[in-house]
Amino acid sequence: MNVVTLFSGGQDSTTCLHWALAQWPHATHVALSFDYGQRHARELASAARIAALSDVEHRIVKVPINALGANALTDASVPVKEGTDGGLPSTFVPGRNLVFVSLAAGLVGSMGGPGAIVIGASAVDFSGYPDCRPAFVAAAELAVQLALGQSDVHVHAPLIERSKADTVRLARTLGRRCWRAVGISWTCYEGGHRPCGRCPACVLRARGFAEAGERDPDIRS
Amino acid sequence: MNVVTLFSGGQDSTTCLHWALAQWPHATHVALSFDYGQRHARELASAARIAALSDVEHRIVKVPINALGANALTDASVPVKEGTDGGLPSTFVPGRNLVFVSLAAGLVGSMGGPGAIVIGASAVDFSGYPDCRPAFVAAAELAVQLALGQSDVHVHAPLIERSKADTVRLARTLGRRCWRAVGISWTCYEGGHRPCGRCPACVLRARGFAEAGERDPDIRS
Repeated sequence: MNVVTLFSGGQDSTTCLHWALAQWPHATHVALSFDYGQRHARELASAARIAALSDVEHRIVKVPINALGANALTDASVPVKEGTDGGLPSTFVPGRNLVFVSLAAGLVGSMGGPGAIVIGASAVDFSGYPDCRPAFVAAAELAVQLALGQSDVHVHAPLIERSKADTVRLARTLGRRCWRAVGISWTCYEGGHRPCGRCPACVLRARGFAEAGERDPDIRS
Repeated sequence: MNVVTLFSGGQDSTTCLHWALAQWPHATHVALSFDYGQRHARELASAARIAALSDVEHRIVKVPINALGANALTDASVPVKEGTDGGLPSTFVPGRNLVFVSLAAGLVGSMGGPGAIVIGASAVDFSGYPDCRPAFVAAAELAVQLALGQSDVHVHAPLIERSKADTVRLARTLGRRCWRAVGISWTCYEGGHRPCGRCPACVLRARGFAEAGERDPDIRS
């Protein structure tokens, strides 16, 4: 059994990684990060530290999604704002999760045998993103299975029905190492030395911990 | 209407590009090539020439599929052989077509509005590849639509039921410019200065022209 967790180094994918470790303790695990010209490349440094702390092989693959079109996650000239004008949030990179799942499928397929791809998509907090919904995850799984000719590869989205607070609660149940890893995880869109505390991602994170009645283990706070 | 044709610079995708130009003469067309460490990078030079000849914008995106696992198309240490031992052909890159379609979806999504993704997969000649079958194409289309939140983006595989000879016949009907482009297209797996004439791709190409009763317009022959 080979498990590839899509791993940005953020709070959600860190929780997913430890969920996967708990789910399949005897599997081969890979944490797969993408370097796609994101503004918050600071995430990748956290990702490497968390993977090391979690004893999981970490791979970073360069994918020039930014070559495909401008948006606020990859283009510093586009301001970050969340779906205020009824359209998609400015942080939406069209097709991003499908590209990520596809590359994870390539890795799982190369490893051979039964596999799992774990993605931290949440339909609750990212309702403006079509590729964070259960229907997308189901369709991506079918496409992966038919692409590989393997029905024993599945796509799991353990956070899909979870709010940020529920994700905090899940992380709490996954043990001390997970909680420490969440403390290292990087959420802020701005990518400075410390989280800005004001961007939509920082606000969402703070609200999640508050609602769950937990203190953010963030080692910088 | 935006049309992205997955474009390797080979015979099949060249025919697809001209099929797409004939199908949607008033659309915005992009020929999308991938630089994924393939052994026959010679294809990309042909791709650029054909796109220029065809008056179509050409984009090359680097995708490190080779980072995901070894196979004969990307690793010079793996000999090229086609599915002789009952397993997958050694040229199979797991998940490759799904990765390509996903990146094309990202581009179409960034361009906005109705779109088409054209892929030169053939279930007839590449029956050993799961990601060259109609079921895969249908599943990929659904995954793309749900990823983008757009039901007006479709995936077309005009060669899916066509043999190599049928593809030659199709190219013949698509006019002189298509036929010239096919002459520039690069098929050989070996990637030298001239086609080797012996690799599976060269043999398949030669048989296709022979069966169609046409002479290969290959300007090097």
